[in-house]
Amino acid sequence: MSNTPQRTDAVIVGAGPVGLFAVFACGMLDVRCHVIDALAEVGGQCSALYPEKPIYDIPGYPTIMAGDLVERLAEQAAPFEPVYRLGQQVTALQAADDGGWTVTTSAGTVVHAAAVIIAAGVGAFGPNRPPLDGIEAYEGIAVHYLVRRREDFRDKRLVIAGGGDSAVDWALSLAEVAAHVAVVHRRDRFRAAPESVNRLKALAADGTIELVVPFQLAGLEGDGNTLDAVLVRDLDGDERRLEADVLLPLYGLAQDLGPIADWGLELERNQLVVDPATCATGRGGIFAIGDVVTYAGKLKLILNGFSEAAMAAHAIHPLVHPGAALHFEYSTTKGVPGRD
Amino acid sequence: MSNTPQRTDAVIVGAGPVGLFAVFACGMLDVRCHVIDALAEVGGQCSALYPEKPIYDIPGYPTIMAGDLVERLAEQAAPFEPVYRLGQQVTALQAADDGGWTVTTSAGTVVHAAAVIIAAGVGAFGPNRPPLDGIEAYEGIAVHYLVRRREDFRDKRLVIAGGGDSAVDWALSLAEVAAHVAVVHRRDRFRAAPESVNRLKALAADGTIELVVPFQLAGLEGDGNTLDAVLVRDLDGDERRLEADVLLPLYGLAQDLGPIADWGLELERNQLVVDPATCATGRGGIFAIGDVVTYAGKLKLILNGFSEAAMAAHAIHPLVHPGAALHFEYSTTKGVPGRD
Repeated sequence: MSNTPQRTDAVIVGAGPVGLFAVFACGMLDVRCHVIDALAEVGGQCSALYPEKPIYDIPGYPTIMAGDLVERLAEQAAPFEPVYRLGQQVTALQAADDGGWTVTTSAGTVVHAAAVIIAAGVGAFGPNRPPLDGIEAYEGIAVHYLVRRREDFRDKRLVIAGGGDSAVDWALSLAEVAAHVAVVHRRDRFRAAPESVNRLKALAADGTIELVVPFQLAGLEGDGNTLDAVLVRDLDGDERRLEADVLLPLYGLAQDLGPIADWGLELERNQLVVDPATCATGRGGIFAIGDVVTYAGKLKLILNGFSEAAMAAHAIHPLVHPGAALHFEYSTTKGVPGRD
Repeated sequence: MSNTPQRTDAVIVGAGPVGLFAVFACGMLDVRCHVIDALAEVGGQCSALYPEKPIYDIPGYPTIMAGDLVERLAEQAAPFEPVYRLGQQVTALQAADDGGWTVTTSAGTVVHAAAVIIAAGVGAFGPNRPPLDGIEAYEGIAVHYLVRRREDFRDKRLVIAGGGDSAVDWALSLAEVAAHVAVVHRRDRFRAAPESVNRLKALAADGTIELVVPFQLAGLEGDGNTLDAVLVRDLDGDERRLEADVLLPLYGLAQDLGPIADWGLELERNQLVVDPATCATGRGGIFAIGDVVTYAGKLKLILNGFSEAAMAAHAIHPLVHPGAALHFEYSTTKGVPGRD
């Protein structure tokens, strides 16, 4: 861990869409970046959880798949030659003598920079796991917390657990390919888009989907590899046995800011409080953007994170180039490296 | 002018890229819009001044032509069926009895809405015209304030007047096709990207471009249709005659907020002051977004205008749907009309 620190202008923590755009926004102002992410690839949740999901609210894209958006953003950042440090988490952040910061990662990478931009989204994320004995043994085989490819579930008997948008939408979608779909939810009411809930109920009425409500997951039956059935229980303690090849517990994401919560930054309901004019946190040189931040009027939309990235980049410019006047130019005038 | 008012949820003043995205942002929250613009087509400056100019800082587009961006934004807005009122300016804004606003245009259109979003950019815009006798007669024939197609200037003798990015960039570009390019500027120093100025000086050194500095435009010579020469004068009153087929005065845009300046909204250096949390002006129900606004940290980038559009839409939702809870959803979940 006593590596000689590498030096850059800004360290971006988080390589999701907003972190990637921060590379570009900084680059346009001659601020070079290293980007650290716990995942092995760039794109954050867009790549890891729903690469094939269409997004409709990226300005200028009537529709774009999350994975494609990430690709375009990475391409847009590339001329500025960001250094990606993937598959590693930031473990420590220390004030350096020169007013900058030294960042250390779980892989032993040590980077010194004038500024740090936290674009960590919901933090390190993972599925909310139901507390079922022996569930770990089935994970990745018969228990999945996300759907990467619908085809993986063709002709399978599925139990989908959960009552939110994810559970409802996947029930509707997978009912088209699966042999059988049962939806287990602890309440009668689903917390999802009304139109989707109506469609779910219509499919339940005609027998395409089996609604198992109000029930909760109670156990798994199988040999620790192949699943035979999912056991569920209602509030009175009555049990049912649902024959199944696959269980999809879709209870949303567990969010964990991890060490970021220990950096002495002001938190409000697990989010970092920033000055919306600059995205500066209370500690000089540390900025935060995207879903990890809060301020008056904050919207958790990717497009707002893009705007915050530009504002942070402008606030960081004088830290990296002290005394240099920022000749503010439109991109149409200045162009980007390699594109003139 | 006593037309029965049409009714909508929000009137957007300005159909530039930010106004177009506001249609989408409002639409996602079930807020319907009418859009008014003085120009005959949507897109604002992007369409009217530089449709073929590449833009590099739209998130997710490593490069996109301004005209293409406008097309995509209009397509993204279309499912929400905005009503466009083009080729007309807002002439009056009056408080309605129900707390909304009544907007009247130069074409006699009268629209009532709960909210008004001013996305007027620099306001009505036009070129800064040099005060030369008889210049109007040549406009559109031998005098042009913008370059729509480079090819129009092939093999012509050009005088380009101005010292900013536009004058310098077009001098560099048109030198490749024109018979002769003279650049007239009242100072020795150009106010443009350093790299471009260096290229201009290199082309001047090898005789490709003639630099006529420090000189100002003094007159036009011709028959009121065909131009023969441009007369220029230095500070000592000495004149020169530059033979030319075409004069391109590139002195930037005259900006005129027009009647918007008279609506009792707080102005700061010709810009509307808004609360960055909501983009609300000081008058209830009137919002402003994009280049027309100012607040602490404001950046005049299209992408920041997009973010402001989303914030204004969220602030307008309770005005249009009072008491309705806003079930905030990601577009991936909710989809847009006609795209499910």
